[in-house]
Amino acid sequence: MGTATMNEQIGFIGLGSLGAPLAQNLLASGRPLTLWNRTASKAEPLVQQGARLARRPSEAITGGGVVFTILWDDSSLEEIVRSEGFLDALGTGGVHVSMTTVMPETARQLAALHQAHGSSYVEAPIFGIPQQAVARQLMICLGGPGPAKERVRPLLEAMGGQRIFDFGEAIGAATATKLVGNFMIISAFAAMQESFEVLKASGIDPKPTLDILTTTLLATPGNQRYAGYLLSGMNPIGMSNIPFKDTGLFTRFADSAHTPVPLAKQLREILTAAKRA
Amino acid sequence: MGTATMNEQIGFIGLGSLGAPLAQNLLASGRPLTLWNRTASKAEPLVQQGARLARRPSEAITGGGVVFTILWDDSSLEEIVRSEGFLDALGTGGVHVSMTTVMPETARQLAALHQAHGSSYVEAPIFGIPQQAVARQLMICLGGPGPAKERVRPLLEAMGGQRIFDFGEAIGAATATKLVGNFMIISAFAAMQESFEVLKASGIDPKPTLDILTTTLLATPGNQRYAGYLLSGMNPIGMSNIPFKDTGLFTRFADSAHTPVPLAKQLREILTAAKRA
Repeated sequence: MGTATMNEQIGFIGLGSLGAPLAQNLLASGRPLTLWNRTASKAEPLVQQGARLARRPSEAITGGGVVFTILWDDSSLEEIVRSEGFLDALGTGGVHVSMTTVMPETARQLAALHQAHGSSYVEAPIFGIPQQAVARQLMICLGGPGPAKERVRPLLEAMGGQRIFDFGEAIGAATATKLVGNFMIISAFAAMQESFEVLKASGIDPKPTLDILTTTLLATPGNQRYAGYLLSGMNPIGMSNIPFKDTGLFTRFADSAHTPVPLAKQLREILTAAKRA
Repeated sequence: MGTATMNEQIGFIGLGSLGAPLAQNLLASGRPLTLWNRTASKAEPLVQQGARLARRPSEAITGGGVVFTILWDDSSLEEIVRSEGFLDALGTGGVHVSMTTVMPETARQLAALHQAHGSSYVEAPIFGIPQQAVARQLMICLGGPGPAKERVRPLLEAMGGQRIFDFGEAIGAATATKLVGNFMIISAFAAMQESFEVLKASGIDPKPTLDILTTTLLATPGNQRYAGYLLSGMNPIGMSNIPFKDTGLFTRFADSAHTPVPLAKQLREILTAAKRA
């Protein structure tokens, strides 16, 4: 399978808020890039820096090459993979690095589909927000065939992957880690938000409490960012669709394993109400 | 009011799992201690090291002196404070350092009661487990009259208070911080436990996932300890009454502020079920 060479054309599909800075980093590292995005205009800044724009997903792919996808959800990922010519274009020895947050079962099914076509599916879900992509401080969980992972690792580093954790050959654990991690991060946000509201309603200034807790016992980067949002009057849980979507993935994952997750289900209810508000 | 001198007799009431190592640290620092505990036998190891044992709470107190209490809940604290002779024994200039996790409203009422008797109530709830008390790595939130806090600060340090945060003169914020902090810590545990169960039921080894998350995005001392418990087959949420009690205090606090806390209420349900199991 060999290692990636600097002049190998790389496919990149999905220029959303996280995909765009990843593609930008890859391009800045000198890799020739062919892009595809549903809304083609989002590719313009990158095309001006030398990236090529494909007319359809399969045209972003070089036979036996590497293609990255970073999309909204399971169905948008499936749609791309099952789109005309995608798996044929990837061909024998090709590697699809899938960075979308999806169900572990979706990842397993797509991995089997790639294998049947002679290509490799590497799961590489990302923890990070766009600012962290720009700062090249992303955390990536990696699963899939060893040689394929070795081949794409330099590209993941070039993309901003500061910490890359290898979960082995079996598909599912890296993807499940992303679901579990997001659920734990989002539930911490929801608990902080309830705490913040209770303090405020009790006439207690929430700032000293949140400042102290998020620099001591609860000193995670996520909690610190979230406390900052709350203290400046924002409601980030309600602002973004991602907590709602990702908590839904975790509860579906739990359902598929016949495991009760009452806290996660309540969190999903809270996020549903926040979307309606 | 003056500062504490090394030979001033200190009262210490409550030799539970956290109280006992605190009293031990205080005694080891050379402070003369008079103890009271409902179960007197628990005082024996300390008495053998030179502490005095009082027959009733009020006898643990020196007029104008300092007394610490660390008890189970609001009602056990109220019972001690309202026990015969307690406030009279403390007298003018006395300082009661209250370390029990209670409702902010209870703290405010007790503070007013002390003030009416010429003494000071200092709220000093503790974050920490017994092992951290032994290692003198406790975090203490402090509220109350400035001179009283200055007087007792060296004693809190001698007791194992590694980080002491002053929330000002008004009673309530330090106590509320303890409730909010415990709720956030316990909800993180519950989210981790649901994640752990889903991974296991899905045939995914939870160890790499928890190891990675609790050393990166969720790297708090509590999460690390809790992951260790889960991975060695324990269920610490069900093992102790403290998460159940403290989450109940947070939901009562929220009710008193007329603030909906659906995540906390669900957590309380989970802990109720865990107690029954």
